[in-house]
Amino acid sequence: MPTPPDIHDLYAAAERIKPQIVTTPLLESPHINEICGGRILIKAEPLQRTGSFKFRGAYNTLSQLTKETATGGVVAYSSGNHAQGVAAAAKILGLPAVIIMPDDAPAMKIANTKSFGAEVITYDRYNDDREEIGARISDERGAALIRPYDDPRIIAGQGTVGLEIVRQTGDLGVRPDAVLAPCGGGGLISGTAIAVRHSLPNTDIFAVEPEKYDDTRQSLNSGTRKTIDVSKPSICDALLAPTPGELTFSINKGLLAGGLVVSDNDVREAMRQAFARVKLVVEPGGVVALAAVLSNKYDCRGKTVCVVCSGGNVDAEHYAEILNGI
Amino acid sequence: MPTPPDIHDLYAAAERIKPQIVTTPLLESPHINEICGGRILIKAEPLQRTGSFKFRGAYNTLSQLTKETATGGVVAYSSGNHAQGVAAAAKILGLPAVIIMPDDAPAMKIANTKSFGAEVITYDRYNDDREEIGARISDERGAALIRPYDDPRIIAGQGTVGLEIVRQTGDLGVRPDAVLAPCGGGGLISGTAIAVRHSLPNTDIFAVEPEKYDDTRQSLNSGTRKTIDVSKPSICDALLAPTPGELTFSINKGLLAGGLVVSDNDVREAMRQAFARVKLVVEPGGVVALAAVLSNKYDCRGKTVCVVCSGGNVDAEHYAEILNGI
Repeated sequence: MPTPPDIHDLYAAAERIKPQIVTTPLLESPHINEICGGRILIKAEPLQRTGSFKFRGAYNTLSQLTKETATGGVVAYSSGNHAQGVAAAAKILGLPAVIIMPDDAPAMKIANTKSFGAEVITYDRYNDDREEIGARISDERGAALIRPYDDPRIIAGQGTVGLEIVRQTGDLGVRPDAVLAPCGGGGLISGTAIAVRHSLPNTDIFAVEPEKYDDTRQSLNSGTRKTIDVSKPSICDALLAPTPGELTFSINKGLLAGGLVVSDNDVREAMRQAFARVKLVVEPGGVVALAAVLSNKYDCRGKTVCVVCSGGNVDAEHYAEILNGI
Repeated sequence: MPTPPDIHDLYAAAERIKPQIVTTPLLESPHINEICGGRILIKAEPLQRTGSFKFRGAYNTLSQLTKETATGGVVAYSSGNHAQGVAAAAKILGLPAVIIMPDDAPAMKIANTKSFGAEVITYDRYNDDREEIGARISDERGAALIRPYDDPRIIAGQGTVGLEIVRQTGDLGVRPDAVLAPCGGGGLISGTAIAVRHSLPNTDIFAVEPEKYDDTRQSLNSGTRKTIDVSKPSICDALLAPTPGELTFSINKGLLAGGLVVSDNDVREAMRQAFARVKLVVEPGGVVALAAVLSNKYDCRGKTVCVVCSGGNVDAEHYAEILNGI
């Protein structure tokens, strides 16, 4: 297992990606504050380049590749947001990219990935082994395999979300009682935890997962990595990892206060509130932390809580259905 | 006619409203840049408190009222965004508010205005005179009438959008060739023009209006205020002013490069692009400047153009229809 990144790796990542990223705002809605009984600060990563935080880690990683390590460009497997992040970073850096995506990924995610010039190969999420396909293409083409979360460069890049939260809450003159972020493989939450813990040691950090996909919560509770059955349906297509990353979990078990779980209906309601009150398009997997505070899975009364909305890549038809209460 | 605000009034407004507003980001989409052939910087005012820029002018005005000028609180007439801005500012300042709104205003705008504690009185947009109703209530209750645009305090508040554009484009190291903003009565564009012209004298400033409601364009072309027939349908509910404000037009005729017009279909397509590529919910009237660059009503090839997206208060059902191409 590689060494986890430290705060200096995050600072270096922030400098590296600064010219390419959006410093996303911390947004606030008096109405959402009222529902939650506290002060909710929303880190708006749907406004990030490629529509999710994943561009941060991807660009941090790809910009450190050399001709020797990426003779044949890059290859990545992803449900869709890492795909777009890697494809966009590869385009900027002039590297060819092959992206392996599940055949049931949202059409927007596949189309956007292709729009950045990447070659997309689809696989069957229930029967194929994406890691095996990735390793094979990496071998065949001499392409650097860019893992979605279990890589210190990826974690350091995603952790710049946490650095911005520290600075932006400081600018507001507040110390959040808690920071909540969505968790699939754990790259975003582990990187964010490194940043937040460094500057705000008394802030509790929680991973939020969709119901039936709470492998990180189970693993945090038991102290060892658990694997869950991924055959069950969930609308949170971005968060369907079967088990925490080895590296991300090694960080998370030391830094997180725990895991929280939300239902698909909590997710739909949070998407509607983000539309109506924040004017932010958030995808199902991206909205789980906001869903946790709105559904009282985390009690915010009297607290200041920062929630990361991590992405907004949702198909228009699906979004319209959710707005219409379907 | 009162004296128009100058740049110092805008600076004072910025200081006054700073603790209450969101400094909204300038967003950019490589995909939108590609469509337009230039660099498009999107000032994201749907992320503003109350979901539109209108809170800026409302808070700037209401925070300067005294007990003598507003014994009975405030009264305003508005199609919906000024309504929410005034209602939210009144709530913060502890003033009672009466808001006169057309009975066909979007349900979300009426509901949000009420949610800030304001009393809402509806009128028939085709047969009643909202100015007359406003004057009567102002007299009866001793309430200060807060006009939607023809007031130097309102214009100075909206002009802080322009101050932020100047600073944020400076931070990016660019001087925009043009700034485009939506235009109803002209408060936003006139305030923005004062700020932009002060610091960026070579930047062209354009008012953008929906087709059939191009009273500002016609007035700029002829040099005098024109009044148009407002009986025709438009999806841009926020921009249905029959004639430019007297004060706003006196500013605009000296500072604007001209007026641009977009169709309802241009508006729908721009709303879809803002959803898909920027993850920003923008209402029909709020998206006209983005629509102008996407539909090539303003040719951006080789240019850097800042477009103001001014608001995002659109009903969920209507938004879902537009996403579905209806």
